[in-house]
Amino acid sequence: MQLQEAREQLQKLQSQMAAYRHAQGLLSFDGSTTAPKNTTANRAKTLSVLGEVSYKLSTGKDTVDLLEYLDARKESLSEKEQRQVFLMLKSIRFMQKIPMDEFLAYRRLLVESGDVWRRAKEQNDFASFEPYLEQIIKTKKRHAAYEDPAMDPYDYWLNEYETGLNQKTCDTFFAAVREGIVPLLQKVQSREQVSDACLKGDFPEADQEALAYYLMDRLGLDRGHVGLATTEHPFTTSLGSHFDTRITTHYHREDVSSSLYSVIHESGHALYSTGSAPELAYTVLDGGVSMSIHESQSRFYENYIGRSLPFIQSIFPKIRELFPAQMEGVTAEDFWKAVNRAEPSLIRTQADELTYCLHVMVRYELEKQLMHGDLKVCDLPAAWNALYQEYLGVTVPDDTRGVLQDMHWGGGMIGYFPSYALGSAYGAQILAKMKESLDVEACLAKGELEPINAWNREHIWQFGCLYPPEVLLQRVLVAPFDPGYYIRYLEEKYTEIYGL
Amino acid sequence: MQLQEAREQLQKLQSQMAAYRHAQGLLSFDGSTTAPKNTTANRAKTLSVLGEVSYKLSTGKDTVDLLEYLDARKESLSEKEQRQVFLMLKSIRFMQKIPMDEFLAYRRLLVESGDVWRRAKEQNDFASFEPYLEQIIKTKKRHAAYEDPAMDPYDYWLNEYETGLNQKTCDTFFAAVREGIVPLLQKVQSREQVSDACLKGDFPEADQEALAYYLMDRLGLDRGHVGLATTEHPFTTSLGSHFDTRITTHYHREDVSSSLYSVIHESGHALYSTGSAPELAYTVLDGGVSMSIHESQSRFYENYIGRSLPFIQSIFPKIRELFPAQMEGVTAEDFWKAVNRAEPSLIRTQADELTYCLHVMVRYELEKQLMHGDLKVCDLPAAWNALYQEYLGVTVPDDTRGVLQDMHWGGGMIGYFPSYALGSAYGAQILAKMKESLDVEACLAKGELEPINAWNREHIWQFGCLYPPEVLLQRVLVAPFDPGYYIRYLEEKYTEIYGL
Repeated sequence: MQLQEAREQLQKLQSQMAAYRHAQGLLSFDGSTTAPKNTTANRAKTLSVLGEVSYKLSTGKDTVDLLEYLDARKESLSEKEQRQVFLMLKSIRFMQKIPMDEFLAYRRLLVESGDVWRRAKEQNDFASFEPYLEQIIKTKKRHAAYEDPAMDPYDYWLNEYETGLNQKTCDTFFAAVREGIVPLLQKVQSREQVSDACLKGDFPEADQEALAYYLMDRLGLDRGHVGLATTEHPFTTSLGSHFDTRITTHYHREDVSSSLYSVIHESGHALYSTGSAPELAYTVLDGGVSMSIHESQSRFYENYIGRSLPFIQSIFPKIRELFPAQMEGVTAEDFWKAVNRAEPSLIRTQADELTYCLHVMVRYELEKQLMHGDLKVCDLPAAWNALYQEYLGVTVPDDTRGVLQDMHWGGGMIGYFPSYALGSAYGAQILAKMKESLDVEACLAKGELEPINAWNREHIWQFGCLYPPEVLLQRVLVAPFDPGYYIRYLEEKYTEIYGL
Repeated sequence: MQLQEAREQLQKLQSQMAAYRHAQGLLSFDGSTTAPKNTTANRAKTLSVLGEVSYKLSTGKDTVDLLEYLDARKESLSEKEQRQVFLMLKSIRFMQKIPMDEFLAYRRLLVESGDVWRRAKEQNDFASFEPYLEQIIKTKKRHAAYEDPAMDPYDYWLNEYETGLNQKTCDTFFAAVREGIVPLLQKVQSREQVSDACLKGDFPEADQEALAYYLMDRLGLDRGHVGLATTEHPFTTSLGSHFDTRITTHYHREDVSSSLYSVIHESGHALYSTGSAPELAYTVLDGGVSMSIHESQSRFYENYIGRSLPFIQSIFPKIRELFPAQMEGVTAEDFWKAVNRAEPSLIRTQADELTYCLHVMVRYELEKQLMHGDLKVCDLPAAWNALYQEYLGVTVPDDTRGVLQDMHWGGGMIGYFPSYALGSAYGAQILAKMKESLDVEACLAKGELEPINAWNREHIWQFGCLYPPEVLLQRVLVAPFDPGYYIRYLEEKYTEIYGL
């Protein structure tokens, strides 16, 4: 084999893998959005056939030979090619340790369990979901043991979602955050509560949809390449390369803020996904590099942009235009206070910025216990309810609004939740860094998002997966990560809102 | 190879092919319904990768060896297996004659041309579509020549959509239909026109959607397996086996009948698709056998059921409930007359039953000329307009409502249109046969569709592709096909409506 030929083969292979990701991603997207409800088994069958082929494509002998050939000559490869070979070999070494039939059985399990979770949530029926979650936890432990039998299985998965992350780091991070947030929340609760009455009422779906499209435009998404659909639990998916990304939302007729902020959050993901440099298209470097960096962007737009006073002032005329009766007598400042009201609550995705991390901490503690066998799945709802009482002081009325609220565990994502909290904290430090060279407030006051997007594109988005997350973060921040930025941001914000 | 092993391999292969059809079908469905508008190139790339793999899967050496091995032992196979081997070998012999790069280039062309057609129609811009259609016609001729150089290229494609069909048969059929319809239409036009004012007005999309779901339920579709989406030109697609079928519609806010009848039409396709016997699932025998038989079912439900007085009487309370202001003072009989108003018009899919065949004849005549080189694509719009003037007496105001109205040619479907007319005629004779053993009027009066569906399931749907269309038709009708049934049905119906 000639080197040049091997390099071309590497690109062709990645392009084929991208096609399978596209098809598989679309099948899953369809399952969560428009597919009729009894089509899961049929979809699982197709995903299993495609999964088998793409597994062979990315781990087969020809591929391994090609990658090892290139790896042995890495000094002749470009930086991008080196990283492609590294990432593909890493994922092969991961997959090689899992027997193929187990791998395929797990994929089928996830398709079914996603569906079972959806119905269980609808019907407040944890018992139907329990055996699936048990299987998932077992499989995650078994897979971790295949990969690295010496490693703590939960550390293994934390590290998979975010290279370098482990329970020690998380414990330290969450302790710092808790130390900052809990007294701040107590102070907030000692003051008069701000009203969120203007967010509640009757907001027809068609008007909320119009608002969603308006927000996508305002945030600078290219709607020729980014679509919007509805689903139970909003998510974003990139369908093969950054030329086609779909965000989703869920309209709550009685609360205008729910879809509003989920659209901004998912738009942050979509901006990052579609912001990779064009030359990364159809390679494994295309799209976001890790969950935490992804969340740093989604929560950046959701909170640091979307819940700021100047941004709300700039979108409020549209909100008033769409909902004239509901916004009668409401000012932009009222609306801003309303969407920043801090109050312990039941649902993570609807939580305010201040209490959000406490929701994540509940999940982190429970995952730790589940993965170590300190908690049985059948005891999970009770443990969930107890921690919500302890951390947030709220009583969980049913599993739909409790342990069944998130799709992550049913989707096999154990070790993912901490990235939401980390992402928020990264975002605060990224914002501080951005402010050193850009007048963010002035951009927001003028309603101009493009300079902000350009900064993120230049420092983060364009690189796709070229750098590992810790390297990328170091490049962006030019300093070590420090959760202090996040705590100080929250202190300043809530001091202003509540007059502390 | 052992026979038993080969038989199992045959089933496994078909199951894999079904998975690719599912993924490819979903990609196309997505492209026509929810995908953002600039994602075509990305989708084309993925379809081309999947197309290459499924091409190899269904025509590769292993597959050919397997099928030839089984073909040589066909006396040991079941009737179903024999037919599977026959159909798969037939399609291999078809594909073997087309060089793979041409085949893949053609697939890419179709993805692009579908998109170009959509925009051309939107913007009344035939010129942008012209080069694509030229390429398609050229390719269809070239492919026909690869397959059977001695055969007339248009006959080749007619026969592909409907085994046994050729221009001679079409000419005879259309002559008979024309001889029956033209004088009937003249009589109708000499009488006072019935009013269709009750169909026009303002019908909000959400209410039309509610009506669509109601109709799907009434027609006996299982909505757990059959979905509804919106698109420019309504179609039905079966996504891998009969467990997941999607119908689509297009809501015209100013005309309630357009989506109403397109939903019933597509539901007819979906009933047929999902009605295959369960043991045909994941094989090449699953789903409808030919375009004409498919149209015989879709037009059966659209016209013979959906435009009958007793059916309309049974759904009219729902229509009045959804549109109380618009239906003020309107009776079921008024509505029935309105949806059966016969009048030469511009748009095939909105044409009444009586003039419908004339729309098809225009397309048939033009396809013949295009495929024989008697008409250049650049002259097509003028030729279209001239034939509409001649056959229907209407002046085409623009290409959007003229030559660009249908997606078929842009989708590579040349030789498909005659099946709409044949399907209508088959349907009339099927209805007559059904009435010999079932009181269809009584079922409709009671609003019970199930006995009618059961008859179609027993005589048509369950067989999937087990019998060639001509054999299936012969089994259903127990008599040769006779367009006289169709003509007589139209005569009786319009005599009643117009008091001829």
